[in-house]
Amino acid sequence: MNLEDCIRLDRLDDLSGMRQEFQIPDHVIYLDGNSLGPLPHIVRERVQNTVINEWGKDLITSWNHHDWINLPMTVGEKISKLIGAAPGQVICADSVSVNLFKVLASALALRADRHVILSTHDNFPTDLYMAQGLSTLKDNRCQLETVEPENLFEALTESVAVLMLTEVDFRTGQRWNMREVNTAAHKAGALVIWDLSHSAGAIPVYLDDTEADFAVGCGYKYLNGGPGAPAFVYVAHQHQQVEQPLAGWMGHANPFDFSRDYEPAADIRRFSSGTPGIIGLSALDAAMDLWLNIDTESVQRKSVSLARVMKERLSEDKVFSEISLIGPGPGPEGGSQIAFQHEHAYAIVQALIERGVIGDFRTPDIIRFGLCPLFLSHVDIFQAMDVLAEVLPNGIYREKRFQTRSFVT
Amino acid sequence: MNLEDCIRLDRLDDLSGMRQEFQIPDHVIYLDGNSLGPLPHIVRERVQNTVINEWGKDLITSWNHHDWINLPMTVGEKISKLIGAAPGQVICADSVSVNLFKVLASALALRADRHVILSTHDNFPTDLYMAQGLSTLKDNRCQLETVEPENLFEALTESVAVLMLTEVDFRTGQRWNMREVNTAAHKAGALVIWDLSHSAGAIPVYLDDTEADFAVGCGYKYLNGGPGAPAFVYVAHQHQQVEQPLAGWMGHANPFDFSRDYEPAADIRRFSSGTPGIIGLSALDAAMDLWLNIDTESVQRKSVSLARVMKERLSEDKVFSEISLIGPGPGPEGGSQIAFQHEHAYAIVQALIERGVIGDFRTPDIIRFGLCPLFLSHVDIFQAMDVLAEVLPNGIYREKRFQTRSFVT
Repeated sequence: MNLEDCIRLDRLDDLSGMRQEFQIPDHVIYLDGNSLGPLPHIVRERVQNTVINEWGKDLITSWNHHDWINLPMTVGEKISKLIGAAPGQVICADSVSVNLFKVLASALALRADRHVILSTHDNFPTDLYMAQGLSTLKDNRCQLETVEPENLFEALTESVAVLMLTEVDFRTGQRWNMREVNTAAHKAGALVIWDLSHSAGAIPVYLDDTEADFAVGCGYKYLNGGPGAPAFVYVAHQHQQVEQPLAGWMGHANPFDFSRDYEPAADIRRFSSGTPGIIGLSALDAAMDLWLNIDTESVQRKSVSLARVMKERLSEDKVFSEISLIGPGPGPEGGSQIAFQHEHAYAIVQALIERGVIGDFRTPDIIRFGLCPLFLSHVDIFQAMDVLAEVLPNGIYREKRFQTRSFVT
Repeated sequence: MNLEDCIRLDRLDDLSGMRQEFQIPDHVIYLDGNSLGPLPHIVRERVQNTVINEWGKDLITSWNHHDWINLPMTVGEKISKLIGAAPGQVICADSVSVNLFKVLASALALRADRHVILSTHDNFPTDLYMAQGLSTLKDNRCQLETVEPENLFEALTESVAVLMLTEVDFRTGQRWNMREVNTAAHKAGALVIWDLSHSAGAIPVYLDDTEADFAVGCGYKYLNGGPGAPAFVYVAHQHQQVEQPLAGWMGHANPFDFSRDYEPAADIRRFSSGTPGIIGLSALDAAMDLWLNIDTESVQRKSVSLARVMKERLSEDKVFSEISLIGPGPGPEGGSQIAFQHEHAYAIVQALIERGVIGDFRTPDIIRFGLCPLFLSHVDIFQAMDVLAEVLPNGIYREKRFQTRSFVT
C-alpha cells in the first residue's frame, strides 16, 4: 500500500465529493469525527439564519412561522432514514442519557412482571449509570445486571425485562448482530433498547426490519450536529402506547391548552419533554441534509476501504509492531473505527494531536481512530499512519508534556 | 400620562442604555420577552464564534481549550447572582422540566417518610405533569396534590414532602412571598422547590437569604438565552449530598474514567446528566454578560414604572373599559408582566401582532404583556397602548383571520 494506491482509491470513491461540505482545518487529519463530527458549511449558514433571521427578526412568532414547534419531528424523520425506521417512530430531543431513562422506564412498564435491566460490563458508562439511577429511584424494584458480552445470551432469563446494549462498542468498535440479539431477547420475553451513538451515520442499521423495540442515539458524532447536539429516540409503533415518566409539556397531546393533567400525545411526540433547544436542533437539522442522497451501505463500504489502508500499513511496516490492533475494524462485525492498544496510549494521542492527527484516547490504554467516510480520504489515512510511524519508534511520546492529562481526554 | 411624560421618564431611566444591546426589529414593540427574550448582539457574535472558531477550527480539543466542559458551571455562576445564590449551587443543564424531575426526586429522597408533592392548581402545567410522571414511575408511592393558592398554607400537613411552586404565575403575574412560604413549609417539615422561570432576570430573588431548598428556571425568557435555551437548577449547599436519578456521565465524579459504577460528583455537578448542548449554552453564557452591572432591584423599579404608564392610560381612557386588568402588576406582589382579560383575547392579540405589538395570548381569555426592563422604554408602552386603543373599539379583532388559531398561541 503506497500513496499512489490511496490516490487511486480516492479517485474511485463515490463519497469523495462530500469532503467539500465540511470545514476541516488545514494541516489536520481528523480521526475524531466519532467523538465530535466536524462543522458542515450548511450548518454554519443555518445557525446564522436561525439566530439572526428567525430568532432575531421574527422572535416568538418563529414557533409558527419557521415551524420550530415541529423541528423535533422534522429532524427525527431525517434520522429515521439512516437507522431503518419507518416514519413516525423517531423524535429528536434531550440527551442520549435522558432519552435512555425514558425508554428504560417505558420498557419496564411494558414488562411489569420482570425486574432486570440486562447489559454488558463494557457498555458505555452513562448508559449503565442511567439504569442505576432509575433502579435507585424505584427502590431497587428494578435492577441492573451486567455480564461479559460472551455470556449475554445465557443471561437472558425470564427475569429480564429489558436488554440494553450499545450496538458498536465505544472502545473496540465490536458490533452486535442486531437481528440475532433482538430474536434471542424476544424469545426470552425481553424487550431491547439499542444505543446507536456509534452506529447512526456510521453503519447500516435496520431497526424495523430486525424488530428492535427502542433505540437512542447521538447527534454530535457521525451525524455532525455540533457539540452536545440533541439526541434522538426511536420507539417502535407497537410500543407507543406506553407513557414515559419525563412527562413534560412538549409531550402533551395539546401543550397550549395548558390543562392541569398530563395527557400524552398519541404519537412519538410523547417521548419529548421540555422545550427543545432550537439553535442546536436547527444545526442538526441542517447537518442531516448532507445525508439526503447517501445510503448507509456505501458508507460502510468506504469505512472498510479506509480501514484497509490502515491495516495494510500496519502489517507492512515493523515500526508499528509495538501497537496492537483490537476489535474487528469496520465491516459486518465492527463499527466505523479502529482501535489500538499501547501502554502509553495517552501520550501517543497527545503527540499525534500536536502533529495534526487528531484521534482519541480511551482509558486505560486505547488509541481510537474514527474513520468517518463523509470527510476522510484514503490519503488522509495513509498520511496519518506516516505521522504515527514518526511518533512511535523515536519515543517522542515519552516527552513529559504529552503525559499531563487534561480533564477531557 | 402623555407622550412627553414618557419621553421624560425614559431620559431618567438608568437602564435605557441597555436597549442598544439587543436586536429589536423596526416597527415592533416587543411585549413578549417573558416568552422568548430578543436577540442580544453579543449572543449573535458569540454563537458565530462558537460555531466557526471553536467547533469549526479547534474541533474536539475545544472541550479543553475553550473550557466547554465547565460551561454548565460557568453559566450557573452567572445566573446565581440574579437569584441570590452563593457560588457552587447553580448549574445550567437540560430543560426546566427535566431539572424539575431531578429536584422533585431529590426532595422526596430527603423526606422519605412523606409522600405528598404539594402544588397549586394554577402552577405551570409542565411542572404538574413532571410530578405526575414521577408519581406514576414510583407506583404512586408519591402523589401530587394541588390546591387553590389561598388554601396553600393549610395544606402543609405532615404528609407533605415537598412544596413545588412557581414564584410568579405565568398568567396573572401574581407572586408568592418566598420568605413566608419557605418558613411555613420548613415549619411543617417540608422542602420547597421554586420554579423561577418568570422570576430570574425579572424581579429580585433571594434564594439563600430566604432559605430556599431547590429551584429551577428558564434561560430563554428574561435571560435572553435564545429559543429553548438550557435551563438552570439550584440546590442549596446543605442538600447537595442527595443523589438525583438522572445519573448521567456529566454528573459523575470522574466522567472520563469511564468507570462502571455511578459515583456522583461531590458538588452541584451531580445535577447535570448527559452531554450539554454547547451552542445553546454559549448563547446563554454570552447573554448573561448583559447582567454584569445590573442589579435586580433596579430592574424591578423599572418594571413598576413601565406598568404605571400602562395602568394610567387604562384608567384615563374609556376605550379600554372592555378589558379588565388581572393580577397585581409589577411590584412586591407581582412579576414583570401585566395581564388583561377579554372574551376575544386571542383575536385581540393577533390583531396587535399584525400592528407590530407582540404580546401573548394565554388560554382561555388572557392577554399577557411582558414588561422587560432591559429593552423596553416608557414610550414603547405608551405607543402599545395607542395600538390597543385602535384595535379595541373598532372591533378590528373580530375579523375572521384573527380568529384562526395556530398551534402555538
